[in-house]
Amino acid sequence: MKIAVLGTGGGARAHIAKLAELGHDVHVGTRDPQATLARTEPDMMGSPPFKDFLAQHPGVELHTFGDAAAASDGLVINGIDGHNAVAALSAIADRLAGKTLIDYAVPFVYRHEPEHPWPTPWGIMPKLEPVDTDSLGEQIQRALPRTKVVKSFVTQEQTTVVNPKAVGNGDHTMFVAGEDADAKQRATDLLKAYGWTDVLDLGPLVCARGMEMYAHMHSAIGFGLGHEFGGHFGIKVVR
Amino acid sequence: MKIAVLGTGGGARAHIAKLAELGHDVHVGTRDPQATLARTEPDMMGSPPFKDFLAQHPGVELHTFGDAAAASDGLVINGIDGHNAVAALSAIADRLAGKTLIDYAVPFVYRHEPEHPWPTPWGIMPKLEPVDTDSLGEQIQRALPRTKVVKSFVTQEQTTVVNPKAVGNGDHTMFVAGEDADAKQRATDLLKAYGWTDVLDLGPLVCARGMEMYAHMHSAIGFGLGHEFGGHFGIKVVR
Repeated sequence: MKIAVLGTGGGARAHIAKLAELGHDVHVGTRDPQATLARTEPDMMGSPPFKDFLAQHPGVELHTFGDAAAASDGLVINGIDGHNAVAALSAIADRLAGKTLIDYAVPFVYRHEPEHPWPTPWGIMPKLEPVDTDSLGEQIQRALPRTKVVKSFVTQEQTTVVNPKAVGNGDHTMFVAGEDADAKQRATDLLKAYGWTDVLDLGPLVCARGMEMYAHMHSAIGFGLGHEFGGHFGIKVVR
Repeated sequence: MKIAVLGTGGGARAHIAKLAELGHDVHVGTRDPQATLARTEPDMMGSPPFKDFLAQHPGVELHTFGDAAAASDGLVINGIDGHNAVAALSAIADRLAGKTLIDYAVPFVYRHEPEHPWPTPWGIMPKLEPVDTDSLGEQIQRALPRTKVVKSFVTQEQTTVVNPKAVGNGDHTMFVAGEDADAKQRATDLLKAYGWTDVLDLGPLVCARGMEMYAHMHSAIGFGLGHEFGGHFGIKVVR
């Protein structure tokens, strides 16, 4: 398949590499391809320059967000950070029309909270916007009424999403939520190709609220386990 | 031990019955004992009148909130609903001083949302207050600086908290968070007596945010599994 991945950060790279390994044609979207290729320093999360990553993954193509979306034959993965996702996706709404968009962004608003330098690794507590009565997944769906939005992946580090067997031999649970059954099936098929055996459909996109709000619990569990940022553990729904 | 349970709802009753079964002296607190005993109708959640429950558990004593807290020799379980907890506990702060208070309340503000009659069983979506940048657990600790607050139990139905082996033979995870290590150990000891084998200390009480915000995910998972309200499943941290 021709699959678009929007974003060039660490999470997006995990999907790009895995999709290429699975034999898909991967079309990566970035705001400004020339600027992305010109960077020679690690990004804010410590990932090496994207051009180095690209050199290691021949066949992966870099485009603007819109051109990457247009190159997809049906599936687009949103790896644009939560703060910018609605604006960036709205700007290419026509090119996402009719497609399935899997969104894994968390709508973090970072803020400093010196009295609670914990449990995040950055010495700050995350704040979510929106939260509780709305979600980024729902905002994106409202902004893109012609696109089938599926919220998924968000309860895990993306390196574990593409390699679930790295934790407990894969015996843990991934979630999908969305309004369109076919789009959720498409996301589920991708997750099974990644190695997931337990994919739970939570129901409509309103469940994205819980998936995004789980970010606090994910951080807390990681630090409860003594991990640095990006610790590898899974959540299994036992029933 | 002499243990106080504040509240007479379904969750509180699960703890009262289990603690009595374990041989503890259980002191139940309610706002107005005479009014509680006078009730002859099921409560809003369908639980039978408390006096019927009390008749089935000889030895369990009913008091005011304050008298129940005073009767405890160290451990108090807060089963007062989230909306009323801070005010009710603040009013008996002197009688909770020096004790360990395990809080499992979720700060739900119920509201009607007809466009999303799902995924809660009541046809409404929950809203939390506080959320994201504060938690009920932290509010209670600030209101009771002389009390050692532990947030726990909140990620589960209370009937499963007191009977973890009912799900997956007990192979799932319970969480504690709080500022005081001895108080968390006391809560952990109680959980082990209930049958829990995996109790994860998340760290300081700021982690109560994640535990309370998990309420959305808990509802979503329950409905993803096709459960009615109060479905029995567990969350296991796989590592």
